[in-house]
Amino acid sequence: MDEIVGSIPAETHPEDAAYRAGVVDLLGILAYGGLTAFQRLADDAATAPTLADQVMTSSMAVVQFRNFEAVRDHLWTFDVDVLDAMEPFHRAFDDYHERAQPKIWLETLVSAYVGDGFAADFYREIAAYVDANTRALVDEVLTTDRQTDYIVGRVRQAIADEPAVGGRLALWGRRLVGEALTQAQRVASERSALTGLISGTVNRSGMDLAMIGRMLTRLVENHALRMDRLGLAS
Amino acid sequence: MDEIVGSIPAETHPEDAAYRAGVVDLLGILAYGGLTAFQRLADDAATAPTLADQVMTSSMAVVQFRNFEAVRDHLWTFDVDVLDAMEPFHRAFDDYHERAQPKIWLETLVSAYVGDGFAADFYREIAAYVDANTRALVDEVLTTDRQTDYIVGRVRQAIADEPAVGGRLALWGRRLVGEALTQAQRVASERSALTGLISGTVNRSGMDLAMIGRMLTRLVENHALRMDRLGLAS
Repeated sequence: MDEIVGSIPAETHPEDAAYRAGVVDLLGILAYGGLTAFQRLADDAATAPTLADQVMTSSMAVVQFRNFEAVRDHLWTFDVDVLDAMEPFHRAFDDYHERAQPKIWLETLVSAYVGDGFAADFYREIAAYVDANTRALVDEVLTTDRQTDYIVGRVRQAIADEPAVGGRLALWGRRLVGEALTQAQRVASERSALTGLISGTVNRSGMDLAMIGRMLTRLVENHALRMDRLGLAS
Repeated sequence: MDEIVGSIPAETHPEDAAYRAGVVDLLGILAYGGLTAFQRLADDAATAPTLADQVMTSSMAVVQFRNFEAVRDHLWTFDVDVLDAMEPFHRAFDDYHERAQPKIWLETLVSAYVGDGFAADFYREIAAYVDANTRALVDEVLTTDRQTDYIVGRVRQAIADEPAVGGRLALWGRRLVGEALTQAQRVASERSALTGLISGTVNRSGMDLAMIGRMLTRLVENHALRMDRLGLAS
């Protein structure tokens, strides 16, 4: 039992200021991630090939905005304004969206599934080290199952119709993860409270190097699974 | 009592095909109106002067998409696909949004309050002649009270900061109603089932010319009230 308590010690040190700052960072990232994903998906909805696709893309955008709202409300329980919590992450997300701006609507779908899926896996890994309420919120916000069938069906159909598009989208999926890792690295170098959630502090245990290695392996494997599900080479 | 039943006779003739077509038209208008308002507001959210304004504009967009979804679900109870119901109204709404495309973000706010408010009043007048379930849905979808305080405060502040903007926005508000009436007239000339809801049929009583005159007076008065609340000359 000691090991289990030891591996999720956040609840035992709720007053820990560094822990609190790390959680607020995680929530700020989720909030700004949701808000910018909303804007990207809503913009791209206008370029969907059919009105039915526009509706589906718009509904994916709306889910992202609902996530933003849920995180905003949760941040209030920490007495933190969502605008303040998001501020440190503007540059990383704005740069990501600028550098990974879909040129065609199918790239939007791949971004929503592969790019957001990779980010979601990473957030879930971090959330293993936060309090139960925050963890429940993170899990809820990151559930995107309803969209998966639609996206997989649409991308596979597009590749069946025009095989060349598969190569383009595979390249796109790999690029997304590259851009995401670049921004994640920037954030990690600037926000020690956030990395402290993962690596642990004097009071809280976290991941050692071997655990971080296994985490990266999981992230890469899940990414390959998603690419495979879309029919894309990873 | 006879008069009251006589004025809302829709329930007594649910099988009336013309009535049904009129209701489906009304719902198609509401659905496509919500979907296009979502797209316009989401697009314009990106141009908001502050992140807080962007969030508010995005949340107004999301309310419009929720309205679209509510109408879509209600249309299923009539065995009608929302995509089919919206189709006859693409041109009118697309033309409206093209001709009344906000150049600055404040015009977006005026559109959302004055333009959509005018349309909402009109839909409510029509909804007086439909069945109770549809009427309840229309009332629910057209409730925009939560946004009003924000929009009124933001527009009045902008005029206080820069009085010249008041003249520009007043012109914009008048133009919106002009464009809306142009499109309404086009729709009325093409969709007899819809106008039949208002004018009545052999089986159902509707508005006579004097009632239509009073309705137009109400619409104009409410429009003037909204302009006045924003501090704009109507």
